[in-house]
Amino acid sequence: MMELGLIGLGKMGGNMRERIRRAGHTVIGYDRNPDLADVHSLQELVDKLEAPRVVWIMVPAGAATQSTIDELGELLSPGDTVVDGGNSRWTDDEKHAEELAAKSIGFVDCGVSGGVWGLENGYALMYGGDAENVAKVRPIFDALKPEGESGAVHAGKVGAGHFAKMVHNGIEYAMMQAYAEGWELLEAVDSVTDVREVLRSWQSGTVIRSWLLDLAVNALDADEHLTKIRGYAADSGEGRWTVEAAIDHAVPLPAITSALFARFASRQDDSPQMKMVAALRNQFGGHAVENTK
Amino acid sequence: MMELGLIGLGKMGGNMRERIRRAGHTVIGYDRNPDLADVHSLQELVDKLEAPRVVWIMVPAGAATQSTIDELGELLSPGDTVVDGGNSRWTDDEKHAEELAAKSIGFVDCGVSGGVWGLENGYALMYGGDAENVAKVRPIFDALKPEGESGAVHAGKVGAGHFAKMVHNGIEYAMMQAYAEGWELLEAVDSVTDVREVLRSWQSGTVIRSWLLDLAVNALDADEHLTKIRGYAADSGEGRWTVEAAIDHAVPLPAITSALFARFASRQDDSPQMKMVAALRNQFGGHAVENTK
Amino acid sequence: MMELGLIGLGKMGGNMRERIRRAGHTVIGYDRNPDLADVHSLQELVDKLEAPRVVWIMVPAGAATQSTIDELGELLSPGDTVVDGGNSRWTDDEKHAEELAAKSIGFVDCGVSGGVWGLENGYALMYGGDAENVAKVRPIFDALKPEGESGAVHAGKVGAGHFAKMVHNGIEYAMMQAYAEGWELLEAVDSVTDVREVLRSWQSGTVIRSWLLDLAVNALDADEHLTKIRGYAADSGEGRWTVEAAIDHAVPLPAITSALFARFASRQDDSPQMKMVAALRNQFGGHAVENTK
Amino acid sequence: MMELGLIGLGKMGGNMRERIRRAGHTVIGYDRNPDLADVHSLQELVDKLEAPRVVWIMVPAGAATQSTIDELGELLSPGDTVVDGGNSRWTDDEKHAEELAAKSIGFVDCGVSGGVWGLENGYALMYGGDAENVAKVRPIFDALKPEGESGAVHAGKVGAGHFAKMVHNGIEYAMMQAYAEGWELLEAVDSVTDVREVLRSWQSGTVIRSWLLDLAVNALDADEHLTKIRGYAADSGEGRWTVEAAIDHAVPLPAITSALFARFASRQDDSPQMKMVAALRNQFGGHAVENTK
Repeated sequence: MMELGLIGLGKMGGNMRERIRRAGHTVIGYDRNPDLADVHSLQELVDKLEAPRVVWIMVPAGAATQSTIDELGELLSPGDTVVDGGNSRWTDDEKHAEELAAKSIGFVDCGVSGGVWGLENGYALMYGGDAENVAKVRPIFDALKPEGESGAVHAGKVGAGHFAKMVHNGIEYAMMQAYAEGWELLEAVDSVTDVREVLRSWQSGTVIRSWLLDLAVNALDADEHLTKIRGYAADSGEGRWTVEAAIDHAVPLPAITSALFARFASRQDDSPQMKMVAALRNQFGGHAVENTK
Repeated sequence: MMELGLIGLGKMGGNMRERIRRAGHTVIGYDRNPDLADVHSLQELVDKLEAPRVVWIMVPAGAATQSTIDELGELLSPGDTVVDGGNSRWTDDEKHAEELAAKSIGFVDCGVSGGVWGLENGYALMYGGDAENVAKVRPIFDALKPEGESGAVHAGKVGAGHFAKMVHNGIEYAMMQAYAEGWELLEAVDSVTDVREVLRSWQSGTVIRSWLLDLAVNALDADEHLTKIRGYAADSGEGRWTVEAAIDHAVPLPAITSALFARFASRQDDSPQMKMVAALRNQFGGHAVENTK
Repeated sequence: MMELGLIGLGKMGGNMRERIRRAGHTVIGYDRNPDLADVHSLQELVDKLEAPRVVWIMVPAGAATQSTIDELGELLSPGDTVVDGGNSRWTDDEKHAEELAAKSIGFVDCGVSGGVWGLENGYALMYGGDAENVAKVRPIFDALKPEGESGAVHAGKVGAGHFAKMVHNGIEYAMMQAYAEGWELLEAVDSVTDVREVLRSWQSGTVIRSWLLDLAVNALDADEHLTKIRGYAADSGEGRWTVEAAIDHAVPLPAITSALFARFASRQDDSPQMKMVAALRNQFGGHAVENTK
Repeated sequence: MMELGLIGLGKMGGNMRERIRRAGHTVIGYDRNPDLADVHSLQELVDKLEAPRVVWIMVPAGAATQSTIDELGELLSPGDTVVDGGNSRWTDDEKHAEELAAKSIGFVDCGVSGGVWGLENGYALMYGGDAENVAKVRPIFDALKPEGESGAVHAGKVGAGHFAKMVHNGIEYAMMQAYAEGWELLEAVDSVTDVREVLRSWQSGTVIRSWLLDLAVNALDADEHLTKIRGYAADSGEGRWTVEAAIDHAVPLPAITSALFARFASRQDDSPQMKMVAALRNQFGGHAVENTK
């Protein structure tokens, strides 16, 4: 059993604290929201942990993660280890590792998947870093991961964890798009009279059975034709980064990119590019355009 | 100078009659609308032409073209020639040619491009059929085509004319999409302060100068940010047929197909597939969905 | 327990006979290959079955299925039922149903998924047709389907079964493409040192866990970097039909279509379209081209 | 008439020097290759120009441009102006402008299109920067640009010139892809017997006539079926940057991106992702794979 400092106790971090505690470890949690926190400052968190410490960061990627790492660099001691379990871009990890290494503090990046289901099912973990640093965190990884052989991987060097998680999310985008396209097509034809039951039937024996398919059936059970939901999909960064990484390595990524672009388009009230297409058709063919209201 | 029977005197056919007459030929035009027509029935049109006759059909593809060909099959004589200048699917041409050949009537299919600019600039023509039948129509082709060496082609066997025109339109879809994407991106950034003038500058000296670009500048001159036009684009069939033909021949067509799909999406008020993506994100991540109103 | 006539005893049909027999039903199988067959002609098969008969066709789509249906139309009696379990295009089903209905023979179309794993795991079934005809086949459906609640569906009218199976395969194309793109990207970067273990880790707890992912891990266990396999993928028709159906209904299908096009491109030794792109770059920029050998 | 310092006298810079001189201006050119150069060092170049100087950089983007700007920062005087006419990424321009502004040296970024045809036809120019700095370079812009009203534009702030040129190139990618796809499809069918003449015919009167189409016809006149050219297309960065900029602004760019990915794929001897697709088909369906040799 070990002690962990956990920073960020939101939807993800809060459930992770619970799962780690259930495994018998001690977790001291900090959050800006005092109602969620066990301690009231990073200083207090560090003070309460015995060296060598392991501190897991679970805050939003970007500025919040950066300032937390900066502050921990001031508060922690040589031999301590920091884990970034947030959705940081993999290109930030090398920078963070160097910043902390200058103070002899170890760094591990860790992509975490599992969402609201993680508390019960376990969290899938992809982590990167030196074997020595990874070893210090392993009991926590074991507590968080799902039961069984798979669900956690030491993917490679610093950055590899977030890279693997990013690619996971890229694949996720394309899989969601795949089911969504198929569902729309089924809904569009007259001969298929029970689309929801078709998807339900796919849950066993088919080539395309998956957990996402199970979720699709759940969603249709709640709202058979999704009439209450607007066709509007946000994106949280990993899909964009996946495409950018692919461009860096000259890897064609047509399915994943088409899923990303479909989300972009879903958020436009009126498509500028289709205005231009309509304008051009009008110019050469005299085709009528529809006017904005 | 020769005589031509012309069936269908709408936006395209009416201007074509005018251009052929300016070249000195005799045109007897028929249209269901008596205000446009020179004669009042196909029978009268056939009677007024001296054999061997050439009759050019310029009516909507599908049922209207089929019934016109059926009727001409009854009225015309062996040695006469029918030209289908409408937007028929190339797969119909072989059938039409056989139907008429059974009565020793010749058949030529002809794709016509030029839109509202054709009367002044000439019409681009792509035709298919036997050399013998094509030869009988050549004076009309010469009258319709633009001045200069290019602008008309005997593309191959029956069906080749409409096939070439269909591919022309497929390319057109992707070119329009290309300019539209670029324009939207320019409009999206702050540093580019005069997007319209950027497009205007491209009209000379650049790799992407084209007639479609000229039309884009015209459109922006009329409405600088296309605020009055809705991003809604119809499609008239040729884009779909191009993709279907590519699938038949296992030819990948990613740019043209993406342009077709962008048009489909532009006509959806709320995207069913993006409802499913939103529903799935909500299921696994607890991401909020936007509700329909 | 019931009797079934089964026509076509290849990789799929042979295993299906075995699974149906294990459930206690009587199967009389016919195949052109006498080593596989229980009877030596369709006549003999029909004679051995007691009316009202159920005959399941499991032969290649197209000509073979058509001629089998034609022959069964001659041999069967009013009240008998034919099931087409092959990969027929859904547009053929209506035609087949009418042909048989003229002789008072029922028709059910059934898409079957499960491949080489179906014998043990069960076959996923999607069928279409009148409730009356479906009811006659239900004991066979129950024998073939996987255990549990899902795995079989009465999707709708005649044609709906093959339509649902076709869409299933379209989704399958895009899912395979999604994993394939992600895997290629992981293989392309240096920081991820054990790509196979990353995929293995995804099998639990992740959003993208699925049966296809399990198969990907199996494939990597057999050949870690797939060095022995050429990047060449055939397609069996359903992907093409899915895109064509989407075009008919103006449904945008970017991810599925990109997967189909990637397969087309994988089968070209040298891409004609990229020859043209190279030629154009050379024309305007003096960029060197690579010559064919 | 004015004086210009021109750094970089390769394929582009050399012809530009010639065109500017033909317009009557004085050009002092420097190149690392002494056979091309008028002076033998940047120091000598700066010494020979009378203040306030205008120096135009025409060297490869990235390190070469950066070191040239660094060196000019040391050599030039307050009130001088630097133009970066290379293919720099627009995100570098702001940085360069600030670096030089710290020494009271002006900066203008300029995208240049025209390739090997520019000497005769003129170069299309898209430039960004303060009006004051742009004004100092205008006589050179006027000398380089094509005759007529279009062909040059002050696109906006610093960076806007390279941004506009980058988008130009993105559009160029998709247009080339569009023609290439259409050409491949025409070559694939039997009924079209003379594909080259079809493309030639499109040069007049069609919606898709363009300079790129003219070049396509040139290429086919040199090699009717492009049998000598390998389907292998490099990319020079602007296409990638265009997609990245679109991702930054959440603009869907399906046609341009598909063109970029087609180039990536064209450079792979064997597609890793299609190996995975083949492996998966083998896993679930027992479909044979092709082995690498």
